Amino acid sequence: MISTSAVDAYIEKNSRRFVDELKELCSFPSISNHGKDAVEPARDWIADRLSRFTDRVETLDAGGMPALYAEVPGGGRRKLLLYQHYDVQPVDPIDLWDSPPFEPVEKDGRIIARGVADDKADVMARIHALETLKSLGDVPVTLRFLVEGEEEIGSKTFEKIAHDHAGKLAADGCLWESGASFDDAGRPTIQFGCRGLLYVQLRVKMLDFDQHSGFASIYPSAAMYMIGALASLRDQEMNIRIDGFYEKVIKPTEADRRMMAKIDPEVDKRRKLIGFDRLVRDPRPEQVIEQMLFTPTCNVAGVTTGYQGPGSKTVLPAEATAKLDFRLIPNQDPADVLSQLRKHLDSNGFEKVEILWSDGEKPARSDPDSAVGKTMIDCVRELHGEPILWPFMPATGPMHPVVADLGIPTVLPVGVGRPDNRIHAPNENIRAADYVNAVRLMCRVWERFGAG
Amino acid sequence: MISTSAVDAYIEKNSRRFVDELKELCSFPSISNHGKDAVEPARDWIADRLSRFTDRVETLDAGGMPALYAEVPGGGRRKLLLYQHYDVQPVDPIDLWDSPPFEPVEKDGRIIARGVADDKADVMARIHALETLKSLGDVPVTLRFLVEGEEEIGSKTFEKIAHDHAGKLAADGCLWESGASFDDAGRPTIQFGCRGLLYVQLRVKMLDFDQHSGFASIYPSAAMYMIGALASLRDQEMNIRIDGFYEKVIKPTEADRRMMAKIDPEVDKRRKLIGFDRLVRDPRPEQVIEQMLFTPTCNVAGVTTGYQGPGSKTVLPAEATAKLDFRLIPNQDPADVLSQLRKHLDSNGFEKVEILWSDGEKPARSDPDSAVGKTMIDCVRELHGEPILWPFMPATGPMHPVVADLGIPTVLPVGVGRPDNRIHAPNENIRAADYVNAVRLMCRVWERFGAG
Repeated sequence: MISTSAVDAYIEKNSRRFVDELKELCSFPSISNHGKDAVEPARDWIADRLSRFTDRVETLDAGGMPALYAEVPGGGRRKLLLYQHYDVQPVDPIDLWDSPPFEPVEKDGRIIARGVADDKADVMARIHALETLKSLGDVPVTLRFLVEGEEEIGSKTFEKIAHDHAGKLAADGCLWESGASFDDAGRPTIQFGCRGLLYVQLRVKMLDFDQHSGFASIYPSAAMYMIGALASLRDQEMNIRIDGFYEKVIKPTEADRRMMAKIDPEVDKRRKLIGFDRLVRDPRPEQVIEQMLFTPTCNVAGVTTGYQGPGSKTVLPAEATAKLDFRLIPNQDPADVLSQLRKHLDSNGFEKVEILWSDGEKPARSDPDSAVGKTMIDCVRELHGEPILWPFMPATGPMHPVVADLGIPTVLPVGVGRPDNRIHAPNENIRAADYVNAVRLMCRVWERFGAG
Repeated sequence: MISTSAVDAYIEKNSRRFVDELKELCSFPSISNHGKDAVEPARDWIADRLSRFTDRVETLDAGGMPALYAEVPGGGRRKLLLYQHYDVQPVDPIDLWDSPPFEPVEKDGRIIARGVADDKADVMARIHALETLKSLGDVPVTLRFLVEGEEEIGSKTFEKIAHDHAGKLAADGCLWESGASFDDAGRPTIQFGCRGLLYVQLRVKMLDFDQHSGFASIYPSAAMYMIGALASLRDQEMNIRIDGFYEKVIKPTEADRRMMAKIDPEVDKRRKLIGFDRLVRDPRPEQVIEQMLFTPTCNVAGVTTGYQGPGSKTVLPAEATAKLDFRLIPNQDPADVLSQLRKHLDSNGFEKVEILWSDGEKPARSDPDSAVGKTMIDCVRELHGEPILWPFMPATGPMHPVVADLGIPTVLPVGVGRPDNRIHAPNENIRAADYVNAVRLMCRVWERFGAG
């Protein structure tokens, strides 16, 4: 085993270069929503980096954005799967960025760029951890990197990739991309699952073309029809009115409640940062985390109808579109919710709302008491202090095939996540110091897990 | 009096040039929504044309888009006010145009360009009528041209212009811009008023910046709040739930009902052209016109919130905006409706919806039995056959200051309007033959009114 001090010294000495290389990766506009050509240069750059340590680098292609796979044989008998993604969210509203999203800048100890938090810091931290251990000796565990290319657009082909390449991905544990790594008080956070997702694109067309709004007394309104349909789905307190929607939602176990009781809901800090007047359902502080995790959602991610520009245009819109996303709780299934949504629209007088397309991911959760879970908890405790444990995170990832189908215990490690990372929003950022610590933690976990 | 045959011969001989000059005017992108610089070239071009016939050309500026005014002294004792506007609607959605909106083309007897129907054909037809009569002799009535520059953005300063220049605008009758001039069977149409308008821009901001939609279980949704507010205003059948909204709405008189009974509702033809499945309230055919005119509206002209692009983005929007327009019936007042809307939002739990700005125009109606009304009816009967008379049109114009404040009997003449003109929509068009006939009718009405 390489000494911790040697590892830390190497990382310290190379930290400036590590940050610069992370910025280099962040300069690629790998927005998966923009198609295959948009993501390829970032993937090639990562493949080139991984090829410095192994000749087992390949792409796994199931018809979507290809994933990058690399196996680095290690000393011990254990195998560890590492999940990251190289794609990023779109950048709009672009005018709210203080600097161009793909020209990474450093300011007040932070690195600002689209994708720096979600998820390029994880990609690079693990490559830099690999470099560190290889430079000082060897890696004591066989590493299996899987760098996905379509996480931000619903991981459409990830399940197929996992099933097609089950042998390559087989491992004794999996380190997922990092989640909300630190709370506002700086307490480290480890998570053991994620919520599911159903994303749908709705459209209603009532007329062949837009009309002068003087005719609104006789011609039907696509805008109002869509508004009625959306209003029928839920109230302002996230009570969802779709029949059957809550049927498979689990309640928290006593172990879940014990974990959640230790999580600071940070309501005042959230309020100051995000500017809300009140939270949905106005929960007592001790209810906030349970509500955040165990309340499935129906969220309007976008509505477009009629005139979008400045000033006035008196138009009766022929068409309206909306984007919805549902966050699902174990054991909801996006396929069930999609069919419940269709039934709801039909039986509430909104049968003209078409579901143009949809994407889904199942929720997943893993056992905190697995070997990889315990190793992570121990290492985080040593490096950052007692960790806060989350049964699962509020967000979504394609964990279900790994956890449920391949049966690999999975943990979301501490990485660079902070409440003010602004992931998916303008001015996404991380702290440079968190990045260096993420490299340190990764080295420590691999050493410990490999020795087990 | 110049003989009708001489007039018709002159117009026939010059019709090709007349159409070309109309196309020249339509090549100016005079979108008032785009600001003063956008409309000035079109106004200057029209001023230059009018200056060929009179030295009394000036702009009337009350702080908005300046109106163009020209007096052409004529032979008789009567004065006739001519109202037109030189501004046009925006062009989006631009990708639905078959040809560039400001590069007028002719196809199958039609001229296609933004503004050709609304309202540049009226502007040019009256200038060409003036040229025709001046070439053959003189105009038997003093003409007072008023060419407004902000009709499509609510005529914000027109009331002030009318009040400030009441002496210049004083007249024995007013020819307004033409309205829906022909029904689908080709029957000519004359209208005697217009509905009012209240246009409002709404906004709600619930968070300081967009959030990852995983937090939708705890952070409030501006999108859903706006949807709830809009859904509370009316149902799908245009029953408006704003307290007091209907208080001042007049019922049709017996004379109104007699006029409306002669109007063909053209339901099947409308259906074929516009593609609706059913009309609002599913009226019997004989109810359609009364519903069209006497039902005030609350129309959602636009909604923007969250992610607008293709594909998916999982975002909880911090803000939502909407544009509403209300068509008002005599004797509703936009100022009343604005205050009723504010009260409705506040008392229905939507007090966070801000009304960022609003514009209003009062409804107006004039007596069909006035001298100018009767002259128009007689001349249309001779040229096109028995006219259909509308108490007022479904749309809005700034007639109220002219009709109610200046007391000038006003009529909307037959012009180029057809059900398939696509005004305010892509591929706005007129028939070239209708344009030539509009010039003929104008000459005839001026001759007859001047002789009265």
